[in-house]
Amino acid sequence: MAEQGTGRRPRVVIVGAGFGGLNAAVGLAKLPVDVTVVDLKNHHTFQPLLYQVALAVLSPGDIAQPIRSILRENTNTEVIMDAVVGFDTVERHVKLKSGAVLIYDYLILATGSTHSYFGKDEWAKIAPGLKTIEDATEIRRRVLLAFELAERQKLETGAHPPLNFVIVGGGPTGVELAGSISDIAKLYMTKDFRHIDPGTAQVLILEGSPYILGAYPEDLQKKAVEQLNALGVRTRTNAHVTDIQPGYVMVGDERVESVCTLWAAGVQASPLGKLIAQSLGIETDRRGSVIVDDHLHPAGHPEVFVLGDLAHFEQDGKQVPGVAQPAMQMGTYAAKRIGLLLEGKGDKQKPFRYFDKGDMATIGRKAAVARIVWPFHANWSGFMAWLTWLTVHIFFLIGFRNRLSVFRQWAYTYVRFRDGVRLIIGSQELPGWDSLASSENQVTKDDSKA
Amino acid sequence: MAEQGTGRRPRVVIVGAGFGGLNAAVGLAKLPVDVTVVDLKNHHTFQPLLYQVALAVLSPGDIAQPIRSILRENTNTEVIMDAVVGFDTVERHVKLKSGAVLIYDYLILATGSTHSYFGKDEWAKIAPGLKTIEDATEIRRRVLLAFELAERQKLETGAHPPLNFVIVGGGPTGVELAGSISDIAKLYMTKDFRHIDPGTAQVLILEGSPYILGAYPEDLQKKAVEQLNALGVRTRTNAHVTDIQPGYVMVGDERVESVCTLWAAGVQASPLGKLIAQSLGIETDRRGSVIVDDHLHPAGHPEVFVLGDLAHFEQDGKQVPGVAQPAMQMGTYAAKRIGLLLEGKGDKQKPFRYFDKGDMATIGRKAAVARIVWPFHANWSGFMAWLTWLTVHIFFLIGFRNRLSVFRQWAYTYVRFRDGVRLIIGSQELPGWDSLASSENQVTKDDSKA
Repeated sequence: MAEQGTGRRPRVVIVGAGFGGLNAAVGLAKLPVDVTVVDLKNHHTFQPLLYQVALAVLSPGDIAQPIRSILRENTNTEVIMDAVVGFDTVERHVKLKSGAVLIYDYLILATGSTHSYFGKDEWAKIAPGLKTIEDATEIRRRVLLAFELAERQKLETGAHPPLNFVIVGGGPTGVELAGSISDIAKLYMTKDFRHIDPGTAQVLILEGSPYILGAYPEDLQKKAVEQLNALGVRTRTNAHVTDIQPGYVMVGDERVESVCTLWAAGVQASPLGKLIAQSLGIETDRRGSVIVDDHLHPAGHPEVFVLGDLAHFEQDGKQVPGVAQPAMQMGTYAAKRIGLLLEGKGDKQKPFRYFDKGDMATIGRKAAVARIVWPFHANWSGFMAWLTWLTVHIFFLIGFRNRLSVFRQWAYTYVRFRDGVRLIIGSQELPGWDSLASSENQVTKDDSKA
Repeated sequence: MAEQGTGRRPRVVIVGAGFGGLNAAVGLAKLPVDVTVVDLKNHHTFQPLLYQVALAVLSPGDIAQPIRSILRENTNTEVIMDAVVGFDTVERHVKLKSGAVLIYDYLILATGSTHSYFGKDEWAKIAPGLKTIEDATEIRRRVLLAFELAERQKLETGAHPPLNFVIVGGGPTGVELAGSISDIAKLYMTKDFRHIDPGTAQVLILEGSPYILGAYPEDLQKKAVEQLNALGVRTRTNAHVTDIQPGYVMVGDERVESVCTLWAAGVQASPLGKLIAQSLGIETDRRGSVIVDDHLHPAGHPEVFVLGDLAHFEQDGKQVPGVAQPAMQMGTYAAKRIGLLLEGKGDKQKPFRYFDKGDMATIGRKAAVARIVWPFHANWSGFMAWLTWLTVHIFFLIGFRNRLSVFRQWAYTYVRFRDGVRLIIGSQELPGWDSLASSENQVTKDDSKA
């Protein structure tokens, strides 16, 4: 049986240390409860800046921090690095992969979302998405290797396929990846190669809907496309991707060449959504998110909270979006609610309401679009929006140390590109390595004795 | 056929961008030659600080830098990321895995060394060594996961195996790894865990010879052992490792428990040594290094240079050690020699002579041993030696940007541990995951529907 605190105080188990889970833990720090945070990883990831790790502006250590360190001062909280494999919602147990069992009085589920390839999971290997530090490192590896491969092909054959990068999905992640790839190719890499011109790189966004940044007001959508075009990024809307293969993407029947394809199209709730829904005997929505009531509980279970991306919460007839702000607010709400429930004052709490401050997406290194709702209403684009983005993200980065470091590196990047992080780590094999083998290569094999 | 510069100027191909290769490239920058640097990786690694990446003090980006950026201003130099698969030493070609062929007038080989498990290659998976950024990340992952695993075991069963870390090999790398593990366990991790006490971690160095730091003077060897003991690191000499398995190491017939085993015992020359030796019809030494003459040429080939760890060079009857200093000096010598050979003045150059300035190894975060030969003779140990180590390593770190950043992080580490880099990246599976499965675990599998 699990050894957990004194066993007398109410026990709260939080699964997932993203924005929702961490904010709940912080809110519970002063309450008379024992808290256990379970996560598969040892670190919290500041996801809004992941694309900057992917595009070699920041290092993983700048935007990720061990969960233990974040919660070190919370003496009522322990952290377990493990996977949840089951729930017993009658006995109120969480079962971990290691075999340990955690008893809970309150359960907070906040494991977020993962990529969805709309049933074409075989595309994942060819077109990685961006959710974790590992994803970011993999995308960086592929983008940088694409240039290395072209340089080698030019050296060997005198030509190389066009440096076309294809981003599937025109939401904020797609737009941010596209702008950044265009920037590093045109601004930073031009002096590094002798045979190819990295400035010829073309970035194309393929969006299935009629809109780039569909969640933004129409004028910002237009501005975003203008700013993307100014960076040399092309956008195609109503573009239905029917196949993704190494080297190309099919849009309907049309073949679009691609040296590197990235996925920013679909997300689905973490598999834990289905697992808890089964245990509770309730339904999930189409994305696998758990439908929650006004107080963030799944129907009939006031001892369970589902937060952030994993929750389907409707407000004014619209689903609250799966971004950081609502997750953070939900975490704080859940912690406060547990305090009130323990005092028997649960019915005094107002329903949860998402306080929408706005949205932002950067476009390259000095433009952005910002839909601002608070502290005033405005739709900004361009440099002013970018400055706003910068301020907000520096402010919200967890941990003073990281904040300073990221600011320093950003400042540095604008003066001179920071080389240290443009590292290819992991396999040095290029995706097209085999296709490179020429007939000459056949002769090479045994020539070492020549 | 390879497209390489104008095809008129003499062509120099450098294989390997470590200390030797890079110094050769820098020396060749002003000569009327075209230089091609080939490396499997896109970055140069400052190996003397690798152990600090392994133990989560520095980030990979702090000690590694893209080769292209380092050589960006050398307009006569190109960089190819590729593997060498063969030599034609008659036609003077280097054959690359991609199929490209590089013609050379001068060939510089400096691919360094790799781990040697003395024929027990199956140990490599259980006890990784430290030569690359990937190795460092893997070691970091294992050390940090060992603590996470213990925390989970304690939670589940109320006990955990002792936190014994075993380092095989008592040279500088073994000593530096051991001191750092002891430091992070006792100084930085104590507040992070609720169930285990990371301060109980024990680090043991197993050395086959009678000496810790065998290459150092006897008084420094003794001081090193004293300083290691003061950190809680135990050392065993004349300890012959006969088997390495998950969870333990066999020393003769004695079983030594280990939650994490690291390899710092043997090195051998990179496989390229054997390849070039075959092509030239010459012998290598037992470690696979190419025996070179007074001018760093393999016998009978004044157009080929072998540098650093890949070379077997004897001076005053002793082989020059495989560390950074001789490699750098050899790189500079080879570049100068090519300049003289082109002017027909090769016979005017004195034989290469390694100018030994000394050696240093740190022991934890504020002690070291230093054998100083230049600018004065001294054997230092303790804090003074550590300050010397600090100054020298900051000074030699390639790239001003990295130097500043590393200094900042070191300063920061001594005030407050930098959390950001204590990340477990890659697989979150623990090495002992399966052995953890308890009988309870069998029941868990299908309980998700409970």
